[in-house]
Amino acid sequence: MAYINVPDGLYGIRGLMAFRPETAKYINELAEILLRSDNNSLTRGERELIATYVSYLNDCFFCQNAHGAIAQHYLQCDMKFIDDTKANFETSSLTDKLKSLLSIAESASKGGTFVTPEQIEKAKKCGATDKEIHDTVLIAAFFCLCNRYVDGLGTTANPDRQFYINRGKMRAEEGYIGFDLYK
Amino acid sequence: MAYINVPDGLYGIRGLMAFRPETAKYINELAEILLRSDNNSLTRGERELIATYVSYLNDCFFCQNAHGAIAQHYLQCDMKFIDDTKANFETSSLTDKLKSLLSIAESASKGGTFVTPEQIEKAKKCGATDKEIHDTVLIAAFFCLCNRYVDGLGTTANPDRQFYINRGKMRAEEGYIGFDLYK
Repeated sequence: MAYINVPDGLYGIRGLMAFRPETAKYINELAEILLRSDNNSLTRGERELIATYVSYLNDCFFCQNAHGAIAQHYLQCDMKFIDDTKANFETSSLTDKLKSLLSIAESASKGGTFVTPEQIEKAKKCGATDKEIHDTVLIAAFFCLCNRYVDGLGTTANPDRQFYINRGKMRAEEGYIGFDLYK
Repeated sequence: MAYINVPDGLYGIRGLMAFRPETAKYINELAEILLRSDNNSLTRGERELIATYVSYLNDCFFCQNAHGAIAQHYLQCDMKFIDDTKANFETSSLTDKLKSLLSIAESASKGGTFVTPEQIEKAKKCGATDKEIHDTVLIAAFFCLCNRYVDGLGTTANPDRQFYINRGKMRAEEGYIGFDLYK
């Protein structure tokens, strides 16, 4: 049971969004533009993978499974690939550019000052643009918000990972704005 | 110099907002509703103090000074009171309710799972409502975003604390939406 009185049966951030729709509106707008906007040279799958990795580092069960399933849908991979990437992205088959951005996201998740000029330089050498670096840091920072929000208010999460996989496709297709919290 | 190409002379989050106005829009909307909305039983000064304290814990010079000055304006105190509160809020003259909320914010800034049921129970015993607890956690989480965003992209900050004090009143009065980044 969450620390505050959220509606029954709404897991994770959904209960909080029902509790306080005024703030949910802008959190969802930010998620939509960061993770789904087509005006971005990082694919939706890459952006969801950054979100998933940060949520894993912050040990947020709900967010890492919800966004891991969406990443899996976009990347057309299996969940083992997502899990292997979380455990060790350096040995994965991801591009060097994405690996350099995941490294920046990892540092940003610890704290802003943990990101080093050397990490930025490496990302740029791998072809990352300023906007891609910007969005990587902001996605990492945004999920530091979401993870703390979800766990800091003691919300519950469905423990069945298949539940999230089943829903990943729907969220990927419908997006983050105006969806039915109860569906 | 920031890690990405932001306009000259825009310190901290301002340069990032000029670089990516599409995301700035929703970050500012969220700041406005969390920190300034009148529909809240926490005063604006109390909410800015939570923001300042979290930014201090995250060692973000820009945010702790920008929001510390706004808190000082609302609370009509001197900067010594803000500094003393950051260093040790337990011995300050703040209400027990606000102290219990600052304790929750401190835990949330470390990570969502650091918040304990005992901290929530104490806050409720001190009279904190569910909405006040919700907003405290979300303000803490939101500043974990802002602090990582500002420092993770290596932005520069004006080192002169008086600069922020001079601007605190203006920001408090104008709010977070539609302000001139260059003023």
